[in-house]
Amino acid sequence: MAVKKNIGSNSISKIQSQRKRQPSVDELVTGIHKGDQSLLARAITLVESTQEAHQQKAYEIVEKCLSNAHDTLRIGITGVPGVGKSTFIESFGKMLTRLGKKVAVLAVDPSSTISKGSILGDKTRMQELVKDPKAFIRPSPSGDSLGGVARKTRESIILCEAAGYDIILVETVGVGQSETAVHSMVDFFLLLKLTGAGDELQGIKRGIVEMADAIVINKAEGNNIKRAQRAKSDFERALHLYPPKENNWTPKVLTCSSIERTGIAEIWEMIGEYHILNKKNGFFIRHRKDQNKFWFYQTVESLLKQQFYQDATIKEAITPLVQSVEKNTISPFRAAEKLLQVYRKRS
Amino acid sequence: MAVKKNIGSNSISKIQSQRKRQPSVDELVTGIHKGDQSLLARAITLVESTQEAHQQKAYEIVEKCLSNAHDTLRIGITGVPGVGKSTFIESFGKMLTRLGKKVAVLAVDPSSTISKGSILGDKTRMQELVKDPKAFIRPSPSGDSLGGVARKTRESIILCEAAGYDIILVETVGVGQSETAVHSMVDFFLLLKLTGAGDELQGIKRGIVEMADAIVINKAEGNNIKRAQRAKSDFERALHLYPPKENNWTPKVLTCSSIERTGIAEIWEMIGEYHILNKKNGFFIRHRKDQNKFWFYQTVESLLKQQFYQDATIKEAITPLVQSVEKNTISPFRAAEKLLQVYRKRS
Repeated sequence: MAVKKNIGSNSISKIQSQRKRQPSVDELVTGIHKGDQSLLARAITLVESTQEAHQQKAYEIVEKCLSNAHDTLRIGITGVPGVGKSTFIESFGKMLTRLGKKVAVLAVDPSSTISKGSILGDKTRMQELVKDPKAFIRPSPSGDSLGGVARKTRESIILCEAAGYDIILVETVGVGQSETAVHSMVDFFLLLKLTGAGDELQGIKRGIVEMADAIVINKAEGNNIKRAQRAKSDFERALHLYPPKENNWTPKVLTCSSIERTGIAEIWEMIGEYHILNKKNGFFIRHRKDQNKFWFYQTVESLLKQQFYQDATIKEAITPLVQSVEKNTISPFRAAEKLLQVYRKRS
Repeated sequence: MAVKKNIGSNSISKIQSQRKRQPSVDELVTGIHKGDQSLLARAITLVESTQEAHQQKAYEIVEKCLSNAHDTLRIGITGVPGVGKSTFIESFGKMLTRLGKKVAVLAVDPSSTISKGSILGDKTRMQELVKDPKAFIRPSPSGDSLGGVARKTRESIILCEAAGYDIILVETVGVGQSETAVHSMVDFFLLLKLTGAGDELQGIKRGIVEMADAIVINKAEGNNIKRAQRAKSDFERALHLYPPKENNWTPKVLTCSSIERTGIAEIWEMIGEYHILNKKNGFFIRHRKDQNKFWFYQTVESLLKQQFYQDATIKEAITPLVQSVEKNTISPFRAAEKLLQVYRKRS
């Protein structure tokens, strides 16, 4: 408790001594609630750690940071590589901090490792935001599985919100199922697009357009403005064919130039409109509750499977069954039932 | 064994006496291998039954009907209601029986019940095929879940093949995940489309186009021929944007009129081309093996979840945890771990 009292005074020697030893859960929680970026970063490191002891500590911290003050906004941003996500986040984030908002930028990129450098690792594209005291930028956690990365990012969102960040931007590349994961942890999902090069259809194909609350056509500058306008009309027409969203929101299509910083304020205005609508009709809170439940069941089932396939009895029994299934000497359904019988009967 | 010897002679009195009592597994299997439609139908009824005793009998029958003679072809046919699936199957099926093929028509429609009438229940659209001795038509089994219906249909495919049917047509409506299920049980997946009315995009949206080995634009007749040709070009262009399929097959786009029976032979020719390619490059057998494994793991995991959620200890422990998750007083991930701990520790 003595340490806890001292944490307010930020003398260098104290910070150094804290860095040498692991700060306690209480120290970290207090630091986070005070908006201390370095303690927030250390807490996120615990969340990202695969060590059991760190995990337990991380859970305690997250638990103490959970809050029902729904005054934050989580925005997912996706788009294929090259669409200009980092530059967009730089422009958009700077505009938000200028409005007095505190902005945290996180990323979900299951393919990244710390050494290889994740999508946000290249901070040169966010030079201004990196230096902004109102912004907190954290690259994607490395992780073997999307599930792991998603969990870590979701817990990090909680910590950033506890540290006073109003707007959480979660960036993701269009790889595999990562958009779906990000879509399930944000309040608003924004799809960045370019004009031309078959990019329109490639997006539609993956079902991302269906998830998007807005499509923003980036790089609407110079010679590209006309094409961007045409792409806007195309998307607007295409979106009309989709069934209306549960919250009565009609997804919007906008254009912007991240480099010339045009159209950025309009995007924020549109998100504000969405936010007001959802607060009014109760969708905002219901949606967050549903997301909590989604991640609960998702995790339950992934842990359940993990436990099952790692069971020694199952490991032994599964190989001959899979072989028989492949050789077509047993029906897959019967083989599955047999395996479950083994599981039920194991001591 | 005495009964088994007698089964060849088809006197009406014997069939009637068999109908009174349940035929044995051996009788059914022998009957199926002889191509007896009525015994095939009774075996499928056992497959579709939810009674435990019937289930066990069904498994034995299926096991005895499994075969590695890969000389059958399973074709999935999907399309939105109104696209003319039944009429197409009537034309396509008749052409096949005229070529000397034996054709079985099954359906996957999780929403159907026997009383409400399933998609194939309306046999009036297949008047000729229904009367054709070379054809066997079976409506979708009723079932509470897609998984259940899918399993029943897959087992029925095995039985039909054992009964000598060369071509198995599996019809499905574009509802929820039923296309994905059918796609996972056929060798060739055919998407029926109409021109106009926004139908093109609606198909793309659901990701069905990606699964299709061919798109057939139906009702290419009269005034519609020109529009069908235009739709064909549009789809061909769109398909070019998709990555090539694993088996090097480029999905084809064709037009046909089920009513005027034009373009039907070309579809069969195209499927034949696909079949030859896949037999040559080994994809056909590998694909069937992969499908067997897919259904094995699919069933294992669905049974595992079922067993978990029906466990008395879990039922008791899950309610307060879900409430805490909803109230945001516990992280969904930690709540999930707690539930799994309960499961591990139960006696």
